Amino acid sequence: MQPGDPKPLPPDPAVRRLSLYLRELESMLRRGKSTISSKELGDALSLTDAQVRKDFAYFGTFGHPGVGYRVDDLVKRLKHILGTDRQWDVVLVGGGNLGRALSSYRGFDQKGFRLRAIFDVDATKVGQTVNDLPVLSMKDLPTYVKEHGVKLAILAVPTDAAQDVAEQLVDAGLTGILNFAPLKLNVPPKVAVTSVDLAVQLEQLVFQVNVGQQGV
Amino acid sequence: MQPGDPKPLPPDPAVRRLSLYLRELESMLRRGKSTISSKELGDALSLTDAQVRKDFAYFGTFGHPGVGYRVDDLVKRLKHILGTDRQWDVVLVGGGNLGRALSSYRGFDQKGFRLRAIFDVDATKVGQTVNDLPVLSMKDLPTYVKEHGVKLAILAVPTDAAQDVAEQLVDAGLTGILNFAPLKLNVPPKVAVTSVDLAVQLEQLVFQVNVGQQGV
Repeated sequence: MQPGDPKPLPPDPAVRRLSLYLRELESMLRRGKSTISSKELGDALSLTDAQVRKDFAYFGTFGHPGVGYRVDDLVKRLKHILGTDRQWDVVLVGGGNLGRALSSYRGFDQKGFRLRAIFDVDATKVGQTVNDLPVLSMKDLPTYVKEHGVKLAILAVPTDAAQDVAEQLVDAGLTGILNFAPLKLNVPPKVAVTSVDLAVQLEQLVFQVNVGQQGV
Repeated sequence: MQPGDPKPLPPDPAVRRLSLYLRELESMLRRGKSTISSKELGDALSLTDAQVRKDFAYFGTFGHPGVGYRVDDLVKRLKHILGTDRQWDVVLVGGGNLGRALSSYRGFDQKGFRLRAIFDVDATKVGQTVNDLPVLSMKDLPTYVKEHGVKLAILAVPTDAAQDVAEQLVDAGLTGILNFAPLKLNVPPKVAVTSVDLAVQLEQLVFQVNVGQQGV
């Protein structure tokens, strides 16, 4: 590799683990812990310390030999890497039940995501206000996205419409889609998609309930 | 450890990774792959092969020396461990926007979860049918849970009500709660809780969008 060559992209699962590290570290910080070793952090997530160090190595040099990591530094650093050390504007696409539910979800605000507007094709919904957000027409999405410099959309439309609407989001210039429909969206590689798979969350719950039943 | 002693519970993150392994293996099976090594499976999820073997070791003996794992066996095995090789009945608690949205979510059916009824405190909702599900009164939850042997609930009520309603679910005899409210529920240890943290999903998306912007 030559200097100036683009760095290879860290693999998705390593990025996913950054979120897990961050949540763990934030919780440690709240409990007043100031330093941590890769072994301790690994133990908290049942990962080997080698795995923790390998994950961090994708993103640069971390920690102080012999002291481990300073928890507050590490939290700042991980937020910076993830890009959540600043506020992000988000549009919500789909003003049905899911869209309305998400428009009142407080967890977004807590993490620096600011919902700006809801977009819908239904003319009877356009012009309404839902949880302080204006409902705008899908026709106005491209102009809105350009004027406000929005990058992120939450896609909360019915499964049958999801692929078609995703293409409209791409055409409007959005580059990140949080997808709630249980299907794989087909979008150009420059557009990032994260899918929320609620069935996987239930699967995890079932394991715990099952184990509890067996009295293991 | 003596024979007959209860087995130690595998750590949560290892169980979470079982879901990731399972999704990867199901995708491989669809692509016609019949055997796989721990190295290949690890590579697909950016985990070391030692980490993969360590995760599996919590759940017993897997694989054939020299051949690796048979993908179809491993899929069956993981589903059995997770408990998703059979159908699970689920009640949905909260008939507001989120509850209504979840009642039409097709991803649950696809994975063997069967929504049976919606419970709500609002007398004007009770008696309605939403996406073919009856809306029943919260007062009738304990009887319903006992009669139908339901173990799992999806908690989709406003954040302010979540802790109070969670306690009602516990009293009704439910042992697993999929929690959508962005707060930590306080329940007895015998009750399993999995929380859906939508902000973490957005965080992952932001990373990808950020990296794309920097042209890395």
